[in-house]
Amino acid sequence: MATVSPDFDLAQLIADTESEILRVVRERDDSTAGAYEMIRYHLGLDGSGAPAGKRIRPLLGLLAYASIAGEHAKALPGAAAVELGHNFSLVHDDIEDGDRERRHRATLWARYGVAQAINAGDMLFSLSRIALHRLSDLGFSDAKVLRLMRLYDETCVALCEGQYIDIATSESDEIMSVDLYFDMIGRKTAALIAASIEAGALLATDDDEVVARYRGFGWALGLAFQLNDDLLGIWGAEHATGKEPTDIARHKKTLPVIYAFEHAGPEDRARLVALYSRDKPTNGDVDETIAILERTGARDFTRTEARRYRDEALAELDAAGVVDARARERLEQIIVSVITA
Amino acid sequence: MATVSPDFDLAQLIADTESEILRVVRERDDSTAGAYEMIRYHLGLDGSGAPAGKRIRPLLGLLAYASIAGEHAKALPGAAAVELGHNFSLVHDDIEDGDRERRHRATLWARYGVAQAINAGDMLFSLSRIALHRLSDLGFSDAKVLRLMRLYDETCVALCEGQYIDIATSESDEIMSVDLYFDMIGRKTAALIAASIEAGALLATDDDEVVARYRGFGWALGLAFQLNDDLLGIWGAEHATGKEPTDIARHKKTLPVIYAFEHAGPEDRARLVALYSRDKPTNGDVDETIAILERTGARDFTRTEARRYRDEALAELDAAGVVDARARERLEQIIVSVITA
Repeated sequence: MATVSPDFDLAQLIADTESEILRVVRERDDSTAGAYEMIRYHLGLDGSGAPAGKRIRPLLGLLAYASIAGEHAKALPGAAAVELGHNFSLVHDDIEDGDRERRHRATLWARYGVAQAINAGDMLFSLSRIALHRLSDLGFSDAKVLRLMRLYDETCVALCEGQYIDIATSESDEIMSVDLYFDMIGRKTAALIAASIEAGALLATDDDEVVARYRGFGWALGLAFQLNDDLLGIWGAEHATGKEPTDIARHKKTLPVIYAFEHAGPEDRARLVALYSRDKPTNGDVDETIAILERTGARDFTRTEARRYRDEALAELDAAGVVDARARERLEQIIVSVITA
Repeated sequence: MATVSPDFDLAQLIADTESEILRVVRERDDSTAGAYEMIRYHLGLDGSGAPAGKRIRPLLGLLAYASIAGEHAKALPGAAAVELGHNFSLVHDDIEDGDRERRHRATLWARYGVAQAINAGDMLFSLSRIALHRLSDLGFSDAKVLRLMRLYDETCVALCEGQYIDIATSESDEIMSVDLYFDMIGRKTAALIAASIEAGALLATDDDEVVARYRGFGWALGLAFQLNDDLLGIWGAEHATGKEPTDIARHKKTLPVIYAFEHAGPEDRARLVALYSRDKPTNGDVDETIAILERTGARDFTRTEARRYRDEALAELDAAGVVDARARERLEQIIVSVITA
């Protein structure tokens, strides 16, 4: 069983989440053991010591729960579900984007082929719900579990909707508007982070007003996370993030780029179109693109928005009236460590 | 609202199921309307008049419910969920198998690309659960809805496990054993048909013994369906099934083939290996393969098994003590019309 950690030590919360995940991704019989092996490989839980994800979503959910309930163990099935659900989307995204590497290892499709990887993603999706059912064993009421499932199901639809917009716009020659970009990242990123935090609150209290505040906190935080990622993908220092900032070289259309397309003068705009249509951009192309982004105020705009959402998140958290100061401190610790740009 | 149909007219049940499905696959806003269009295209619900699926799973679920409850309308959310879930697996299977056509139309990936098709499948999966939540609005208890969800979630895991075995064995040079084949189709086909019927019973009664009988009925029926399909894929007459029997030309390893590999003498076995490793089998190759299958008793074995499971299904249905004679008659009508080989 999970250890009760009054300090809410993040490493302990991660270890407990991983134990909870391992419960559901353990093989059931010989003929399908290979499928569970694939899943553990993707999750970084195959005992290889490979670097796993940061487990931000389960951490936020556990801390949201703990900040009201004073302990985290009973929320572990929710934390496991959200991490499994997030990873289902990563497995499929890697295929959809043709990415062969994730966290310095081969992606699932690059290692096992597209067919097995699609199916392993579906399995992760199914197992994420199996994880949720353990909430009933832990004594939560049927009404509560069902409400959590509805939240999760609606979030999954939003995720897919966001991914639809992402694929449709990346396949199109037109650049999407800043408004559509916020619409997209709301569904694709903020929805799941908001749901993790809302779920934690929902399990801890029946007060709908408090739950709504936590959701607001999560939503704003999710947007801040994404905008921070957008900044790091262009201006991040490799020594700090562990990866090169390659978004411009890969022609990714994140907020700074979209903003520049919308706000640049005719000359810069024409130049951007030309630069973003070259098959293999040179270092000079990348530098020139970044100079245009800075000139049009795209970096400032994105940074201002990221900070605005971060502050909004913290204000929502204040308004919720968090009970457990230690859990609250850990939440702030994550926010500060993750939002750095 | 659904019409109450005391006759349980199959066309009416299908129309009601499709209305219920359309509730959840309707677009919510402009930016994601295209995603819902794709889904309706796949489901044959895009108003093009394209031939849709036979909707066997929802029909069986509705009739199972009606055979106890005397009406079908309250079970429609379950019927919609199971059809959406089945179609999620078809969309992904088509990508995994590289099939470009289904029901005489382009498959989703052939029309919209692999990325959008993977995501549309995920969306169908998510929407299938949204459909289930309407059971609460129709007055079923939280405990009942939750039990149904658990059944559904476990079934989805089984589906993925079956698909894992299918992909793994089709990518391997070794021929799987007859035992493993039954293991695979149990998960890949029988599990969802059994779950549809079990869910129908579960919604109609609290008697666990009756529910278990219905499950047994569904499980045996699912196996019979699959074996019947295997027979039609080799010996079916196109005028009866609407499609050519192409399983041998496509080197599909269905029960008759697997049985022949296991039971053929050394000469026939060597010949089968040679025939099944040719890139483009000629008509002569196909005829020779079929002759070997018949010689080794593969056709007889498969037919005997299909009938045995069909009879077992009917015996389970009898043992369940079905109340509504009209619904029972419709169930038999489906079984007889679908199991024809």
